[in-house]
Amino acid sequence: MGLLVKNGKIVNADMSFFGDVLSDQGKIVQIGETLTAAPGDEVIDAEGQLLMPGGIDPHTHMELPFMGTVASDDFYTGTRAALAGGTTTIIDFVIPNPQQDLLEAYELWQQKAEKSVADYSFHVAVTWWDESVREAMGVLANEHGVNSFKHFMAYKNAIMADDEVLVNSFKRARELGAICTVHAENGELVFTLQQEMIEQGITGPEGHPLSRPPEVEGEAANRAIEIAHLMNVPIYLVHTSCQQAVDAIARARANGQRVYGEVLPGHLLLDDSVYRNEDWSFAAAHVMSPPFRPKGHQEHLWHGLQSGTLQTTATDHCCFCDPQKRNGIDDFTKIPNGTGGVEDRMQVMWHHGVNSGRLTENEFVAVTSTNTAKIFNIYPRKGVIREGSDADFVIWNPNTTRTISKNTHHQKVDFNIFEGMDVQGLNTVTVSRGEVVYRDGQIFAEGGRGQYVKRPLHSADSQALKLHSAQRKVTPVKRENNY
Amino acid sequence: MGLLVKNGKIVNADMSFFGDVLSDQGKIVQIGETLTAAPGDEVIDAEGQLLMPGGIDPHTHMELPFMGTVASDDFYTGTRAALAGGTTTIIDFVIPNPQQDLLEAYELWQQKAEKSVADYSFHVAVTWWDESVREAMGVLANEHGVNSFKHFMAYKNAIMADDEVLVNSFKRARELGAICTVHAENGELVFTLQQEMIEQGITGPEGHPLSRPPEVEGEAANRAIEIAHLMNVPIYLVHTSCQQAVDAIARARANGQRVYGEVLPGHLLLDDSVYRNEDWSFAAAHVMSPPFRPKGHQEHLWHGLQSGTLQTTATDHCCFCDPQKRNGIDDFTKIPNGTGGVEDRMQVMWHHGVNSGRLTENEFVAVTSTNTAKIFNIYPRKGVIREGSDADFVIWNPNTTRTISKNTHHQKVDFNIFEGMDVQGLNTVTVSRGEVVYRDGQIFAEGGRGQYVKRPLHSADSQALKLHSAQRKVTPVKRENNY
Amino acid sequence: MGLLVKNGKIVNADMSFFGDVLSDQGKIVQIGETLTAAPGDEVIDAEGQLLMPGGIDPHTHMELPFMGTVASDDFYTGTRAALAGGTTTIIDFVIPNPQQDLLEAYELWQQKAEKSVADYSFHVAVTWWDESVREAMGVLANEHGVNSFKHFMAYKNAIMADDEVLVNSFKRARELGAICTVHAENGELVFTLQQEMIEQGITGPEGHPLSRPPEVEGEAANRAIEIAHLMNVPIYLVHTSCQQAVDAIARARANGQRVYGEVLPGHLLLDDSVYRNEDWSFAAAHVMSPPFRPKGHQEHLWHGLQSGTLQTTATDHCCFCDPQKRNGIDDFTKIPNGTGGVEDRMQVMWHHGVNSGRLTENEFVAVTSTNTAKIFNIYPRKGVIREGSDADFVIWNPNTTRTISKNTHHQKVDFNIFEGMDVQGLNTVTVSRGEVVYRDGQIFAEGGRGQYVKRPLHSADSQALKLHSAQRKVTPVKRENNY
Amino acid sequence: MGLLVKNGKIVNADMSFFGDVLSDQGKIVQIGETLTAAPGDEVIDAEGQLLMPGGIDPHTHMELPFMGTVASDDFYTGTRAALAGGTTTIIDFVIPNPQQDLLEAYELWQQKAEKSVADYSFHVAVTWWDESVREAMGVLANEHGVNSFKHFMAYKNAIMADDEVLVNSFKRARELGAICTVHAENGELVFTLQQEMIEQGITGPEGHPLSRPPEVEGEAANRAIEIAHLMNVPIYLVHTSCQQAVDAIARARANGQRVYGEVLPGHLLLDDSVYRNEDWSFAAAHVMSPPFRPKGHQEHLWHGLQSGTLQTTATDHCCFCDPQKRNGIDDFTKIPNGTGGVEDRMQVMWHHGVNSGRLTENEFVAVTSTNTAKIFNIYPRKGVIREGSDADFVIWNPNTTRTISKNTHHQKVDFNIFEGMDVQGLNTVTVSRGEVVYRDGQIFAEGGRGQYVKRPLHSADSQALKLHSAQRKVTPVKRENNY
Repeated sequence: MGLLVKNGKIVNADMSFFGDVLSDQGKIVQIGETLTAAPGDEVIDAEGQLLMPGGIDPHTHMELPFMGTVASDDFYTGTRAALAGGTTTIIDFVIPNPQQDLLEAYELWQQKAEKSVADYSFHVAVTWWDESVREAMGVLANEHGVNSFKHFMAYKNAIMADDEVLVNSFKRARELGAICTVHAENGELVFTLQQEMIEQGITGPEGHPLSRPPEVEGEAANRAIEIAHLMNVPIYLVHTSCQQAVDAIARARANGQRVYGEVLPGHLLLDDSVYRNEDWSFAAAHVMSPPFRPKGHQEHLWHGLQSGTLQTTATDHCCFCDPQKRNGIDDFTKIPNGTGGVEDRMQVMWHHGVNSGRLTENEFVAVTSTNTAKIFNIYPRKGVIREGSDADFVIWNPNTTRTISKNTHHQKVDFNIFEGMDVQGLNTVTVSRGEVVYRDGQIFAEGGRGQYVKRPLHSADSQALKLHSAQRKVTPVKRENNY
Repeated sequence: MGLLVKNGKIVNADMSFFGDVLSDQGKIVQIGETLTAAPGDEVIDAEGQLLMPGGIDPHTHMELPFMGTVASDDFYTGTRAALAGGTTTIIDFVIPNPQQDLLEAYELWQQKAEKSVADYSFHVAVTWWDESVREAMGVLANEHGVNSFKHFMAYKNAIMADDEVLVNSFKRARELGAICTVHAENGELVFTLQQEMIEQGITGPEGHPLSRPPEVEGEAANRAIEIAHLMNVPIYLVHTSCQQAVDAIARARANGQRVYGEVLPGHLLLDDSVYRNEDWSFAAAHVMSPPFRPKGHQEHLWHGLQSGTLQTTATDHCCFCDPQKRNGIDDFTKIPNGTGGVEDRMQVMWHHGVNSGRLTENEFVAVTSTNTAKIFNIYPRKGVIREGSDADFVIWNPNTTRTISKNTHHQKVDFNIFEGMDVQGLNTVTVSRGEVVYRDGQIFAEGGRGQYVKRPLHSADSQALKLHSAQRKVTPVKRENNY
Repeated sequence: MGLLVKNGKIVNADMSFFGDVLSDQGKIVQIGETLTAAPGDEVIDAEGQLLMPGGIDPHTHMELPFMGTVASDDFYTGTRAALAGGTTTIIDFVIPNPQQDLLEAYELWQQKAEKSVADYSFHVAVTWWDESVREAMGVLANEHGVNSFKHFMAYKNAIMADDEVLVNSFKRARELGAICTVHAENGELVFTLQQEMIEQGITGPEGHPLSRPPEVEGEAANRAIEIAHLMNVPIYLVHTSCQQAVDAIARARANGQRVYGEVLPGHLLLDDSVYRNEDWSFAAAHVMSPPFRPKGHQEHLWHGLQSGTLQTTATDHCCFCDPQKRNGIDDFTKIPNGTGGVEDRMQVMWHHGVNSGRLTENEFVAVTSTNTAKIFNIYPRKGVIREGSDADFVIWNPNTTRTISKNTHHQKVDFNIFEGMDVQGLNTVTVSRGEVVYRDGQIFAEGGRGQYVKRPLHSADSQALKLHSAQRKVTPVKRENNY
Repeated sequence: MGLLVKNGKIVNADMSFFGDVLSDQGKIVQIGETLTAAPGDEVIDAEGQLLMPGGIDPHTHMELPFMGTVASDDFYTGTRAALAGGTTTIIDFVIPNPQQDLLEAYELWQQKAEKSVADYSFHVAVTWWDESVREAMGVLANEHGVNSFKHFMAYKNAIMADDEVLVNSFKRARELGAICTVHAENGELVFTLQQEMIEQGITGPEGHPLSRPPEVEGEAANRAIEIAHLMNVPIYLVHTSCQQAVDAIARARANGQRVYGEVLPGHLLLDDSVYRNEDWSFAAAHVMSPPFRPKGHQEHLWHGLQSGTLQTTATDHCCFCDPQKRNGIDDFTKIPNGTGGVEDRMQVMWHHGVNSGRLTENEFVAVTSTNTAKIFNIYPRKGVIREGSDADFVIWNPNTTRTISKNTHHQKVDFNIFEGMDVQGLNTVTVSRGEVVYRDGQIFAEGGRGQYVKRPLHSADSQALKLHSAQRKVTPVKRENNY
């Protein structure tokens, strides 16, 4: 039994056009000007609406154990919220503890994810180094569809990767044909600055941004990029939040390097004044790393997206409720880091991106879905409305409005950083592998319907880098035995 | 009677995939895994070869009257050479003399172009300003499919547009929803530097680059971009040749501006040592503006393409034979400016771009065809292999080699700036609107088969800029009558 | 009869040290640890105070005829105010009308300046071009001590210099060994943007910054710098007001070019919100060009000073009273452009520069006096406390405070852009050529005591550029007669 | 018995003037237009010659134990060579082994330096971290005149300082009012790249630059600068060798940071082709870190000096003879790193800096002497010809020429990287603390005459940073007990 969506304007990253879309067996089987439904097919009339590829959120942390607690949204509730907001695929993170076997951690996360209602995939973090890690990376890449490895440059005394880990892991990723991703903050500086804040009596959430200023991110971004350059591997910077990091990426791209940057709607729209709010809970609810930035950085991030220096949007969805945040009531360094957003990203980006004229509708699709699919090598299975692709899409009414609120969102968290924001333009229907999983406020999705998405190695980027490197190969100088 | 190409690897800007392509009536009518030919269809087996969109060269000057002579390749010979090299569409330039009616010039160029064998379109140059020019721009844009206007910032005392022309024309283009293009060189500086060279006794072609150093281009690029920014119109810089110009574009893009840059294979591969060759004819044959640049600039231009700061490749194809060049035998400022290349661009770009690992095959398609189609708003009619698009494509054998030479090229000029260059990877077949127009060295195309391509106004860029501008609209301050 | 200042801390640009300073006949004759006064010498005990070189303000417009009126501070009142604020030398501007003989204008300004109480010198503006202008530049430079020529890139249809004027004048300046200065704003863009504002009904002072956005300055700065680069002449940008201009200078300096930038305290401290004040008179009083800038630019300007990208501070002192400003009551383009400040510069810079830790006391001296003396080649006659130099200095109490106000200032204008600002650190005494001309609020200076300061050609910069240029001289290619 | 130098042109960093200079007791006691010698005074006529401050070389390694051997020039021979070349003061480095007490190392170096013939001072390296190091830094700073601490970011498994050491040491330096210096190369990357070279069979000196590409330096420079920024301490980068490092400094300075950069004549003039020389000994003789760079970087370094992004020149004088270099005959990573130059710096800089028009004579003095004295806070004792300063100067004949050669130099090493270079302009006489120590090829200096130079803490930079920091102090948010 298929699904026929008629009369919509199909919006892909490369172009927009009018047409009908027929899905069957989870795939888009036909796109044409006037398709006819088969008996039993569900038919939706999308007149006046847009059809766009379902969102892909490349950065979520469902039920993550972190800082002594566990993120409140799990793979079931979190992916339901994703579908409600038009996101049909997430890429979450397997994060082994130092000394923990990567494969063991991977299995653990796979178990947690079984209850997902949206499709999911995994980046795997490299938090330590020895020969067994090198081995495990190979198994994950070659057998489990993991083509991206994550590195935290922050969180000293926990999961921080120092230069030795970075260099070794990046080199291994190159061998495998994988891509490296980094959380770019200099953990040593954060550690010292946190101490200095506490020593100065600054124990509230206002200490959070002060201990992680933009330079801390800019430094780490620059370092990771240079290491990737010399190890000859593609690199992707998660949650780029400040001018310094955007500039580091821009410099590298201007040098011909294959570097990518991700940005979160929160960093595009909020500033660091939230941390000085007199309501501790409000301030603490915004504690995430990197923090929201001083005014001025936001426009740079928008420019980064517009110029192509940044390619993707994500959420770093990692929810903690107020009682969890209160672990840090006396010491901001103990406030669990994280905010939500997996449900809000698409609508917030449309409203502030497309309605404002910053992005065209095609660029919107690129930065919410297509570019992520390409970078992480699952295009055109995901990220495009095309015959043969997964039938993941949204039916989008550009005229409908909504006020974002924790009272109405599906995210399992008692706060929303976009509380009260009016957005115009939203998904009236979400379709995941040909099934209507969300329609007009209601979610129709059983736990476990989500599928794991394997991602192949050897993206075009990776191949080009190898070829380029081979071309520049240096030979030893021939010298007479003159000594 | 259709054309079925089987078993090729279809390479578009967004992805590559294997499939058969069926064309009919000039259009691609079906793409599928195993298509069957109808009776009478021509069938080509492309096993082991690639199918890529036909090249679009957005910068040619066929039979241009210039500097006292006329370019040797006309619309017939020039477009034949284009087809031989895999380029199926050109965008040439209507260049009115100062005080000449733009529409009169437009008609003149249309007449010259009637003998074309490849499809063609026209940018129209704005070389002077009054109300009638403003009017004519409207007629060209609204009735003749001209969505781009060209401005020469060089050539003082001839076709140079000063700031007054630029500001007025850019503002008019904004009103119309058109895009502005510029030849960026400060004509006043060129004029003075030419005089200084002659005064110093430097009358040979070596004076050409000395009188047009990179700063001359960088200045003009920066100026045109700022004017476009403030007039709120998209801008496209032709033949970007140096680091300074790439940097100007990159700065503007990093600021969120919609700016595009074009680069020529000659600027990517040659340097200014050619002008000091002891053979005057060799040196003079390389005289074009902007000139080839000192070593070092080439790598910056490649990086520009790789980073997305530059989007397109063109040729500025404008041929003059040695007897014509000799007009400047005693004075380099009188050497007609121009070189060929419309036939060589695709192969040179493949060899030095893809074989070297600088570009992926998809990026190759983007920079030789797709991006131009998008920027000048003829996508997806041109620039992609897709059902419904014009059946313009090449069948490309990545293993075949060729040595470029004036002795074998089809360009009507007695010199080739890539003489002796071995390239691997070339079109074995060129298809234009469903017809095999070139195959294995032979051209099958009657004069006049080329069609004029109208280009619509109001690209997505143009619309987004208007929306963005409207959002930032400023209101007057309300003041009491306190004075 | 000499003047002995004892026990002060002498602060020069290169170092600070304790000592006594003896002046006689207008010169500093001795500096030592414990000097003894001769009979009749005046002795001042500067215990706890600093001795610093008298301020040099390289940018004033006393009694300038401009926009249909004349600046309210003349050479007498204006230089009195200067002395009161610790500035002992000004460099004003001779501004010929287009077609006016430069020498005639020069004589006119010399006459106006005869009543000065502080020393003065003149830049001469080049507002048009023909052979007679070239001639006059030579006379001014060789006979009248004018080593700097000014160019207004704004003020279309009045004194604007287009590229042709710029190129010719810069080339002439190179020949003479002079330095070029520019007011960098693209006059063509200003003209069009002014029209657009008026058309949109924005006729109040808020239209002023909107018609002269930072890009207008950035473009012109970049253009002037490139022209200077290619004409091989040192260049100095007056009243640099925005990030774009600072960046243009920084790029050029990073390229080895000899470029200088000046900044005004107003641009360092005020932002463009003043223009949206509901009191028209308040808003109009701030109308000067370039305008005060959006928040954010100020910090960039400070960084420019700190990094050495900018070298000098000035005021562009050009006062118009409210009745004069009201010429533009219905049309902001008719508000006479100009603000005061010659009296406030030193104190404002000390308070916001040195007290804030942005500048050391030595850097303060550099940016208020020494650098200007060096750039305009009157060092060490001016700009340093040194035996043999003119005895121009201030005795500065770093602990004394003052509130700036139009009610107490000596400037002949009914407004002060720093109204109400508390500053700590000010001159208790001003000494000009060995005379106490200001002490504790009182001015002791007769009209006409000011002397004209001739400035020699061929600064070290100019000489180095000539040498560098000579080293890079290109020769013609020798070619056989092979044609 | 004094020394009177008559009729010379005195060239300081701020200006040039004609005068006589009288020295006595090691100090300059008088400067005047026509001084008269006292009986017994030595008189030198410097007619037609320049008097300039003696060179200060802030980067030497005399008799350094390194890589299994000891540098061949010791404090006696090395400082003799320095005097011969016009350098009258060196700042050498105390380099403790990891875990070695800093004071113990300091004493060791003081003993070695007792035989010096020129004045000397010491930077002390921080190569490891614990509380005792913090203590020792205090003792060195407060009691021994050490105001600068050095950090090697390269040399993994030896003296490399990781981020933890850097952050702690920089913070300590801030407390003390000292300045931090760094050797900026990412040691982890060098280690891995060296391994990769060896694995690829590249064991000769050509592997040296390949394992230390410019990005390795650029990354470390950027990192050290950001750490200094956040720890609020002035920083100085030794031997800046490439565009990437200059750019990192320029970015920081453009951001208002107090950052300094040093450059060596070798990096200004040589390129990395030396490492591919077929003569192993020639190639190995050039092995130093950072290595000489690809063509193009040299011009950037010159521009860095010209623009003020770089302030000082040094040599990193660290000589190893061919038999020592041969330790690395089979493995370039074992070639002792180092080249000479303490004798050649002044003459090479004059010839290529001043004669070429890149630098004025005053800028030459600044970059060879004055700026170093200021940054390391020994100005005006050193670095200027001024009454009261140490009588350290050179008498310089700008017309005399010399061919640099290992056969004639006084450096105790069998190679000279400037072999065969003709330079015009050199010291005919060197005066150290009032004594003629070199004249026309002959050195007159007893071992032990050199004196240790204590350098005071709390430079103007350091004080300004503290003030600036204090001004920006953040306070905790006052929150009701609402939780």
